[in-house]
Amino acid sequence: MSRRNHEPRGVTVEALKVALLGCGSVGTQVARLLTVHAEELAQRVGAPLELIGIAVRTLGVDRGPDIDTRLLTTDAAELVKRADLVIELVGGIEPARTLILDALASGASVVTGNKALLAEHGPELYEAAEAGGVELCYEAAVAGAIPLLRPIRESLAGDRIRRVLGIVNGTTNYVLDKMDAAGLDFADAVAQAQALGYAEADPTADVEGYDAASKAAILASLAFHTRVHADDVHREGITSVTAGDVASARQIGAVVKMLAICERTVAADGSEGVSVRVHPAMIPASHPLASVREAFNAVFVEAEAAGELMFYGRGAGGLPTASAVLGDLVSAARNRVGGSRGPGESTYAHLPVRPMGEVVTRYHISLDVADRPGVLAQVAKVIAEHGVSIETVRQQQIPAAVSDAGEQGRASLVVVTHSATDAALGATVSALAGLDIVTAVVGVMRVEGED
Amino acid sequence: MSRRNHEPRGVTVEALKVALLGCGSVGTQVARLLTVHAEELAQRVGAPLELIGIAVRTLGVDRGPDIDTRLLTTDAAELVKRADLVIELVGGIEPARTLILDALASGASVVTGNKALLAEHGPELYEAAEAGGVELCYEAAVAGAIPLLRPIRESLAGDRIRRVLGIVNGTTNYVLDKMDAAGLDFADAVAQAQALGYAEADPTADVEGYDAASKAAILASLAFHTRVHADDVHREGITSVTAGDVASARQIGAVVKMLAICERTVAADGSEGVSVRVHPAMIPASHPLASVREAFNAVFVEAEAAGELMFYGRGAGGLPTASAVLGDLVSAARNRVGGSRGPGESTYAHLPVRPMGEVVTRYHISLDVADRPGVLAQVAKVIAEHGVSIETVRQQQIPAAVSDAGEQGRASLVVVTHSATDAALGATVSALAGLDIVTAVVGVMRVEGED
Repeated sequence: MSRRNHEPRGVTVEALKVALLGCGSVGTQVARLLTVHAEELAQRVGAPLELIGIAVRTLGVDRGPDIDTRLLTTDAAELVKRADLVIELVGGIEPARTLILDALASGASVVTGNKALLAEHGPELYEAAEAGGVELCYEAAVAGAIPLLRPIRESLAGDRIRRVLGIVNGTTNYVLDKMDAAGLDFADAVAQAQALGYAEADPTADVEGYDAASKAAILASLAFHTRVHADDVHREGITSVTAGDVASARQIGAVVKMLAICERTVAADGSEGVSVRVHPAMIPASHPLASVREAFNAVFVEAEAAGELMFYGRGAGGLPTASAVLGDLVSAARNRVGGSRGPGESTYAHLPVRPMGEVVTRYHISLDVADRPGVLAQVAKVIAEHGVSIETVRQQQIPAAVSDAGEQGRASLVVVTHSATDAALGATVSALAGLDIVTAVVGVMRVEGED
Repeated sequence: MSRRNHEPRGVTVEALKVALLGCGSVGTQVARLLTVHAEELAQRVGAPLELIGIAVRTLGVDRGPDIDTRLLTTDAAELVKRADLVIELVGGIEPARTLILDALASGASVVTGNKALLAEHGPELYEAAEAGGVELCYEAAVAGAIPLLRPIRESLAGDRIRRVLGIVNGTTNYVLDKMDAAGLDFADAVAQAQALGYAEADPTADVEGYDAASKAAILASLAFHTRVHADDVHREGITSVTAGDVASARQIGAVVKMLAICERTVAADGSEGVSVRVHPAMIPASHPLASVREAFNAVFVEAEAAGELMFYGRGAGGLPTASAVLGDLVSAARNRVGGSRGPGESTYAHLPVRPMGEVVTRYHISLDVADRPGVLAQVAKVIAEHGVSIETVRQQQIPAAVSDAGEQGRASLVVVTHSATDAALGATVSALAGLDIVTAVVGVMRVEGED
């Protein structure tokens, strides 16, 4: 290996041309900070960063004092052609995909926060970056301001990540936090999140877990050096989480969180794989993720050598997300000045993604049952027949006033299982639901964060 | 700016030669992981990493099954000459400094965890790396396994860091945690930490804050793009923290933590500076750092755009620290294969380091006073005369049984101040100590983590 010498670093005269695509809350902050901190950024990069244009859909909108209207254009494609660095904050698949591919092909490095696009078309974008000899950066795509992807890609590059457990969607964390702390039901908590700007008018992407699933795909790809597509992610939203679930969680010393879970798995025959899923789950109140409140994000990483790590901060918002975008921009620009590049796609491991049925988890099952002798024995028998074992059972009479089962009376039976495959646990719940003595399956939720 | 094309990435045939200096608990794990994960690391780097030798002081020691004794040598200087990458885990100033300078001069990139050396001679090492056209990496030097320095250097490169508040010494956190949770006094807590291997036989470097001060200097240098030397750090250890201080903290809803605090300051005339200090302080129990238990580390970063971030994990131990070393090694090796380099020293800001007297903080002052009318008025007058204002006062009679002031009786008076300069607060305490009515200054501690 030859020993290389580099030119000494210093501020070159020629500016790097930056194109900004999209001027929403993040784009506005990016444009503002590029101006306000121009001198400092130039020092860090080794060359000035010149914002040469901002592509928007329509020109006639008032964009406030931070946006120089002379920079605005509706011709994004033309703007991209003139840039050394392109910041894509348009969102969605098209035209973002085509604009990014054009930018990479023309030799511009791209910074994006577009999680949906990355989870759908990541490999195509990476290949275009590789072919163009440029960089693709997307720290802002997962957990907003929190430096997370770079640590996973670079700081932990000498380690083996076993599991990533993350609160990566601020909207659902806010909703679940309010259901827990303020006793709100789901609809009221969503309405409050909307009133505060933490949830969209149409909250589907957040509450149904689409946003978290995209992020989980990105995290799993990086953590396990394996391509994981959005469709590979098992996804369940929080729309069916009830105040009862939240109360049940508290009774076992847990809280309900919407989690993105990426795990390295080892099958009985020793073959390795990964599982990637997003769903609400009960985690112990003592787990570091349990105390993540409001719309904050946090990601818990378990690595073979490093042990347990947690990254905490703001997962959304114009200004925090702009921090991640600018961090990527400075890094890509500095590499450009230095004639180098950050790491590209790393997918050498090619681990298979396991179906949800094979994932090992635990269930919290809350049943309404007839209040008579022998009920627990029947329930326990059905559970055992599915190869599942019980960790705890809590049985409680339901007061007559709220009971509608006539003279018989009813009881509440809460079972927390030991670990088993999701398929076995799901089959167990179906079988329990079919028992005469089970009046209703009140709630079923996975229990995570232990092992 | 010209558009550059790069060679496609791939595994080259030629191995990169790695020299390991030091074979303690971290070095042993590094050697082991280099072997166990050789194939995976080669994939990530794009070339195999070949461990060509391990420099030790003496050869006759049993080093366990993870160390190939054929690699051992006592001639570190000769080993360095043959390496592409040098891992320095010897610690201390010499011969570590000379070995690193020789390595950098000969064109080898260096990975080190040597905080004392960096805090003393960082600029010299950086200049040697620059001159050699190679990299100097030291993620392991601060907060062990936690990816912290790379996020600060790269992910937050587009942001402005306002403050870094960190628990960066696991030994002192363990001791203070045991004083709080188990009610131990300082000496017993240290003895327990020693028994568990969390504290050295001579715990001076940890309990007197030298270790934390080195880390604070490194953090401040990176966060504020300014050279900060170990001697610039105001340092106070935890040896004078008493069970009474811990109990007093709890009474105001706080906990005592040993903190490294790096702040950007703005003087009355608008001029910017930095302050860097390590000392025990009371922080609110609700602060994310308050729940960092045992020997864990955590660093809280406040940045202008990103807002509040926290990084949490293991700050020491052979295996966790090896993760940070290997992350740096893979990164430096990958850059070498790709013909590039990570960011070098960034000190363009040249901010002055303010003396401790100018630092703005708050004090918790616990006094024994004579129990008679007018005492509070006198105390309040002295405090006001120093330009300090009071946030809370709590006065409590000391039961006669424990009072030794004769017929007069005594009271406990606890004052928590509003913010003022450390000089004004220190002068206030001196003046209070001089009052006739003050029997004893029982405890004085800074209050941090708010505003």
